[in-house]
Amino acid sequence: MIYLDNAATSYPKPDRVMEEMTRCMREYCANPGRGGHAMSIESGKAVIEAREVISSFFNFSNPLQLCFTKNATEALNIAIKGCLKPGDHVITTCMEHNSVARPLKTLERDMGMQVSIIEGNEFGEIDPQDIKKSIRQNTRLIICTLSSNVNGIVMPVKEIGKIARENGILFLVDAAQGAGTVKIDVDEINADMMAFPGHKGLLGPQGTGGLYVREGLKINPLLQGGTGSNSENLYQPEFMPDVLESGTLNTPGIVGLSHGIRFIENFGLENMELYKYMLVKRLHEGVEEIRGVKVYSKNDMKKNTGIVALNFIGTDSTQISYTLDKVYHIATRAGFHCAPLAHRTLGTVETGVVRFSVGCFNTLEDIDRTLDALREISRKL
Amino acid sequence: MIYLDNAATSYPKPDRVMEEMTRCMREYCANPGRGGHAMSIESGKAVIEAREVISSFFNFSNPLQLCFTKNATEALNIAIKGCLKPGDHVITTCMEHNSVARPLKTLERDMGMQVSIIEGNEFGEIDPQDIKKSIRQNTRLIICTLSSNVNGIVMPVKEIGKIARENGILFLVDAAQGAGTVKIDVDEINADMMAFPGHKGLLGPQGTGGLYVREGLKINPLLQGGTGSNSENLYQPEFMPDVLESGTLNTPGIVGLSHGIRFIENFGLENMELYKYMLVKRLHEGVEEIRGVKVYSKNDMKKNTGIVALNFIGTDSTQISYTLDKVYHIATRAGFHCAPLAHRTLGTVETGVVRFSVGCFNTLEDIDRTLDALREISRKL
Repeated sequence: MIYLDNAATSYPKPDRVMEEMTRCMREYCANPGRGGHAMSIESGKAVIEAREVISSFFNFSNPLQLCFTKNATEALNIAIKGCLKPGDHVITTCMEHNSVARPLKTLERDMGMQVSIIEGNEFGEIDPQDIKKSIRQNTRLIICTLSSNVNGIVMPVKEIGKIARENGILFLVDAAQGAGTVKIDVDEINADMMAFPGHKGLLGPQGTGGLYVREGLKINPLLQGGTGSNSENLYQPEFMPDVLESGTLNTPGIVGLSHGIRFIENFGLENMELYKYMLVKRLHEGVEEIRGVKVYSKNDMKKNTGIVALNFIGTDSTQISYTLDKVYHIATRAGFHCAPLAHRTLGTVETGVVRFSVGCFNTLEDIDRTLDALREISRKL
Repeated sequence: MIYLDNAATSYPKPDRVMEEMTRCMREYCANPGRGGHAMSIESGKAVIEAREVISSFFNFSNPLQLCFTKNATEALNIAIKGCLKPGDHVITTCMEHNSVARPLKTLERDMGMQVSIIEGNEFGEIDPQDIKKSIRQNTRLIICTLSSNVNGIVMPVKEIGKIARENGILFLVDAAQGAGTVKIDVDEINADMMAFPGHKGLLGPQGTGGLYVREGLKINPLLQGGTGSNSENLYQPEFMPDVLESGTLNTPGIVGLSHGIRFIENFGLENMELYKYMLVKRLHEGVEEIRGVKVYSKNDMKKNTGIVALNFIGTDSTQISYTLDKVYHIATRAGFHCAPLAHRTLGTVETGVVRFSVGCFNTLEDIDRTLDALREISRKL
């Protein structure tokens, strides 16, 4: 199997991820922060270490400004619903995933929030000035994906963050595609909040993710429950991260995530970006020479986080993806990728796209075998 | 280390749990339901199998009426917030965990819901007739824990469920303490919804849990996002389980949970209950003979899911627990256990309690060594 579905979830994971998860579960996995005994303390320490690894990776100084979530979707919902009130206006883009679009459309329908969606060019790139022009008196929040999960396009988050800051508007970044591939400094992009999954580029297990919240910003929690802190209080504590972390954390998952990130740091994040782009470039240049193929991604390291999205004109994306799987044992994803707005932008509402998303365990040989398969498919169409 | 903190999280887990989680992550852990390739299908199949294991374990016929959550707290929040509207009245009990009490108190404060809390006897047992008497015209929901996480007392959920059904009121059961120890049949207890954690009695990993929702009952989702279904739709699909499962699931965790439950089934659930009670009985009878000890749990298999809660009168619970850990390497939990209402009922608001919670990997020798330690502590006080 050649696995080119890393934008859905990365595979394989570094050995250390599974090893440390198993060691955690076998040796010390009590409930972190829920008791004073030795194992509970060791479990709590492992969670704190993971906070430190992540805060250092995204360059924020206080590890307590991170709340762990089960996935990026939960983090995005916490962020969006935790800072908006009825009547607020939100600006977002045409390339957002359903994890941003669906909460917003629901708030618009049910709670009277207003939503502006900024359109982009053929790749989905937006002009930050279009965001600026959409700002209203009641604009409370701007949300932008770091990079599209459909075609990998990189969005101008730094410029958007600057506009948000200058206008006193909160800025939420969805780093689901891109975290672990490109350098992210939450201060440099002026992010007030940033959501990320653990199981994609960060090489951690499914069931993990997080939300960074800028110090001083108060978010209303989506969940209330046991926090192990202020146990005698019938209301949620108001301090981070407890305010946003109700119920038992996924300790082994968090340990696994921290070792995924450590793997990236050992590999070198810059090397990770270069390596993935090397694969994308080879694939991109190869498919462009195949008759009948239309590519929706940019062949530019600074504009692509590791995806080649394409179609064979006139053929449904699911048919290509099915053939790649069944005949060639190449795993890709076809269809709509939970981002209907993006497909409107790319002009693929009818067909979807075949998405090839590379990971750091793919090789040039994987890419060459994929290109061979695509050439053969093209000949037979 | 003698681990007697199984009510916080069970430890150890059956070997098979870690083995199957690792195998999942190493061999097939793509994104379930997010692609058509072989690995994604295998991943999806593992999730479906887990749904079947769980639905069979709790005796509901349609496995799709289960949504997976990150913990019981999330499941309880989904259930509570998904079926209430401002002005609704809720009845609950004095033994609820903060994962029930905090969401309710917050809804009461911020959204105009009304909450009645039924008081119990010295063990926290409530009289179902007191619930009946508290029903109002606008009572929408009754919530009761299956068993207290503080002292293990078993609540009369079957009788309460009957009252709820007869009065057309929804009934939500919090099975955080008890699932995996006692037989639960959601129909027999008339539960419309039941929340459970994966990492306690069910012997699965942290990061797992679920919510059963009776067929036909519509719950508004707390999260919206990618579901892998109706991808082209900017609103959440309305069918179970997708309506309540946004974002990538914790596939390895869910696989681990299903193997935790299979372990219980092989052991035999009735044997599990008997075995745990054998340990509790020995501990209970032992501590009752120690001078100065007050016990807050019942020594009755049908009234206790595996906890002995106690204090040395005049000594803070944290001091006892600390000594047990440091001197005797016995892990217990002291303090308030995220259930302030329960401590009011038990008369332990000032002291908390020392909680000994047994698991199926504890032995009679563990209990005897614990009793030796407690006798020695008693002599030195």
